[in-house]
Amino acid sequence: MTSIDLNADLGEGFGHWRLTDDERLLSVVTSANVACGFHAGDAATMRRVCELAAERGVRIGAQVSYRDLAGFGRRAMDVPPAELTAEVAYQIGALEVFARAAGARVAYVKPHGALYNRVVRDEEQAGAVVDGVLLADAALPVLGLPGSRLLELAGKAGLPVVPEAFADRAYTDEGTLVPRRQEGAVVTDPASVVARSVDLARSGEVGTHSGRRIGVRARSLCLHGDTPGAVDLARRVRDGLEAAGIRVEAFA
Amino acid sequence: MTSIDLNADLGEGFGHWRLTDDERLLSVVTSANVACGFHAGDAATMRRVCELAAERGVRIGAQVSYRDLAGFGRRAMDVPPAELTAEVAYQIGALEVFARAAGARVAYVKPHGALYNRVVRDEEQAGAVVDGVLLADAALPVLGLPGSRLLELAGKAGLPVVPEAFADRAYTDEGTLVPRRQEGAVVTDPASVVARSVDLARSGEVGTHSGRRIGVRARSLCLHGDTPGAVDLARRVRDGLEAAGIRVEAFA
Amino acid sequence: MTSIDLNADLGEGFGHWRLTDDERLLSVVTSANVACGFHAGDAATMRRVCELAAERGVRIGAQVSYRDLAGFGRRAMDVPPAELTAEVAYQIGALEVFARAAGARVAYVKPHGALYNRVVRDEEQAGAVVDGVLLADAALPVLGLPGSRLLELAGKAGLPVVPEAFADRAYTDEGTLVPRRQEGAVVTDPASVVARSVDLARSGEVGTHSGRRIGVRARSLCLHGDTPGAVDLARRVRDGLEAAGIRVEAFA
Amino acid sequence: MTSIDLNADLGEGFGHWRLTDDERLLSVVTSANVACGFHAGDAATMRRVCELAAERGVRIGAQVSYRDLAGFGRRAMDVPPAELTAEVAYQIGALEVFARAAGARVAYVKPHGALYNRVVRDEEQAGAVVDGVLLADAALPVLGLPGSRLLELAGKAGLPVVPEAFADRAYTDEGTLVPRRQEGAVVTDPASVVARSVDLARSGEVGTHSGRRIGVRARSLCLHGDTPGAVDLARRVRDGLEAAGIRVEAFA
Repeated sequence: MTSIDLNADLGEGFGHWRLTDDERLLSVVTSANVACGFHAGDAATMRRVCELAAERGVRIGAQVSYRDLAGFGRRAMDVPPAELTAEVAYQIGALEVFARAAGARVAYVKPHGALYNRVVRDEEQAGAVVDGVLLADAALPVLGLPGSRLLELAGKAGLPVVPEAFADRAYTDEGTLVPRRQEGAVVTDPASVVARSVDLARSGEVGTHSGRRIGVRARSLCLHGDTPGAVDLARRVRDGLEAAGIRVEAFA
Repeated sequence: MTSIDLNADLGEGFGHWRLTDDERLLSVVTSANVACGFHAGDAATMRRVCELAAERGVRIGAQVSYRDLAGFGRRAMDVPPAELTAEVAYQIGALEVFARAAGARVAYVKPHGALYNRVVRDEEQAGAVVDGVLLADAALPVLGLPGSRLLELAGKAGLPVVPEAFADRAYTDEGTLVPRRQEGAVVTDPASVVARSVDLARSGEVGTHSGRRIGVRARSLCLHGDTPGAVDLARRVRDGLEAAGIRVEAFA
Repeated sequence: MTSIDLNADLGEGFGHWRLTDDERLLSVVTSANVACGFHAGDAATMRRVCELAAERGVRIGAQVSYRDLAGFGRRAMDVPPAELTAEVAYQIGALEVFARAAGARVAYVKPHGALYNRVVRDEEQAGAVVDGVLLADAALPVLGLPGSRLLELAGKAGLPVVPEAFADRAYTDEGTLVPRRQEGAVVTDPASVVARSVDLARSGEVGTHSGRRIGVRARSLCLHGDTPGAVDLARRVRDGLEAAGIRVEAFA
Repeated sequence: MTSIDLNADLGEGFGHWRLTDDERLLSVVTSANVACGFHAGDAATMRRVCELAAERGVRIGAQVSYRDLAGFGRRAMDVPPAELTAEVAYQIGALEVFARAAGARVAYVKPHGALYNRVVRDEEQAGAVVDGVLLADAALPVLGLPGSRLLELAGKAGLPVVPEAFADRAYTDEGTLVPRRQEGAVVTDPASVVARSVDLARSGEVGTHSGRRIGVRARSLCLHGDTPGAVDLARRVRDGLEAAGIRVEAFA
């Protein structure tokens, strides 16, 4: 029986501000990318999300970011590698205290926003992130884009790597995501997103923008949860996967 | 043979700004109160201080603070207990990652600045700090003022407590510190500070402002290191203690 | 013909986070308390709110706060007066640039959250806020609670003062607000809020918790806008005032 | 008689941290680039520096930066233009309140650190900075590198431009600075720095790395003041200029 992991960003409010519907998302996903305070995520929210995730058996991951609350971590920054390494480790450590207190552990690391995009190609920053993960725990899996420098360097360093796919994004024939500014970059029809999810999980392939099929080797699907509609769609994806006989469970 | 611990604040720069002379202080103290990013202490500095401390066998403590970089943690804040608890745990966890990476562990917690002063009497915040320590590690010693609410509640919660004394501060007959704004509150003559340190370590007593002697039950002496003169004085205190046959070592 | 000003907090998002429905609120209020970046309010939002306010003839006020994004300015802080004075002036100056660019001016100052509550009685901080306003503009009106130290000291310093009232809050016989934690502190029935608003505007009096009537000398009513329901209620208050023949306009 | 402006960065501490020796620098320079809170510069420091500068007739400039206290504004950031424009205007406005209170005005704008370097070539960010200056004041001079996109776009927008030169940096034959990592990039011999300053002010030319002479059209010389030695050198440059019969005064 085929299985797939579902991951989404959680705990992305800050203080008085809320963004993600953490309660509902935790009933959908198997892996929670918890914001660690650098782009979002105050300490009390991190604690609460870890408690809820542990109760429901959802895996806890550190969603590490550039230090940029004002920009929600979406602005690329030329952070020197030594600083970036330390900041990644800092965030993992801060989350670990809440994961442990809830009877769980930080089980993986996933970069957020501009850092996620940067380490697809930037060797120096990708290496700095890997070093930060190693500093925290030399056996911590890294979740990211297949073919990215990040996963390549993490693998070389002996870290488990977990490639992910996006059922709601169009792919090029080379296996990269069609840039958001291009027409058709985002798949908005719910039925299509569900069908693509099932296809991805079952075949390990996805239909590209040009109509071909390519392998994406994903062990996790990334869902979104920052709007009410997004959570509904995430729910439909999970239901669709289960209806198709695919087991939804955290990556091994 | 009598022994005493020497503690001081370290790593209190932030990014481009430096404050404490960490290198020299680490050759004097046996316990380093490392700033954890809320009043001072960027991640790269935390990492470096932990590495240096571990190399030299200096114990690493989490110097937890209100979130207040602009005020250096010196402005009392009415932080709700649940937030304060989570923020204390967050800081401990962030430091722990660097302590572990250096082959050590966070070995105690000491509140900084306005939080230190607040939890002398404020039951609610003292309890919140204790809860934060418990969340991180139910066996972590708490360093603070003898007679403070903080140490009282920490003790009740089963945490080891480490009372500290100040050789450079005048004491009232009740065992509290003479407020800084009063004349004679700070002892500035180096020879007097050294003599008071030896007296405190040997007898467990200190001469008060009015000329009496009172017990202070201190297991650690707090030194300062934010000026060149302060580090020199700290060095003289250590030398004076050792010359008097007192073993300078981290608290048991 | 009687007239009244309606004020509400606007621009209280930060970066990616949104809170207040600024567009709709600007069609209801005559005075906009614009967050200036210390508890909320990024620069781009401040600019946009000033442009919208100027277009619609809504008066722009500086909603000044403690520097506390993580606590949304709701945690009292012992900020030394010289720092508080400078921080108040800084916020007014930052907003002024956007008000001027939109063809308007910062027309008043209102403290936010914990600072608002603190300067009701704290002479030192109230004086520091007044000094900050004077630093920015010696003719800038100050909006606040009738009977507060803030308005008293502002008046003594020659600043125009604008007392405000809350139609949705219960009053004691002494004219202070019933604390939120007491039963009946908040009036939730929309019809009652509208009726109280009309009463306040017309008579200058309000019915107290115990059933008496007292004068409140308010020249502005404070409305809320941080939930969809709150904006609907604000709209009903304005409609109710106008239906009762009361002119809704910015204070003179 | 030839004249030249001397500018340096001031007020670059933050809260408890100090960096620049503002008092001494203000007796040397004619234009003070005052940090505005985004990379350094708390409100109380901004106020004090403006007061001292106004007393001594030193011109006040807004040293605008990316929002990056942790990185001291030295990490390039992909800030979207609309955000950058608003952040530049915000900083100018905040400083203006203290300049006015001291009886002066913000007299020019100079980008700091990574933003300074970025707008040498980045058309989008250079345009965003210019828009921010225009938002604040359509007649405010912009200080920057000759030949930079920033000065080019500022000039096109009708803003006065003030090109600056560096007497302690080696130049290429193309008039750009030799990158710091190359040998000989920084001129450290004080006598050479003074001689180069006099040469620059008198001839409008500078000797390049390869031995040629090129024009640099500078109306201001940038000095440094973040170390005791730097201030001493700045003092020697001023004395040397005056001894050579060059008038040291703010740009017209």
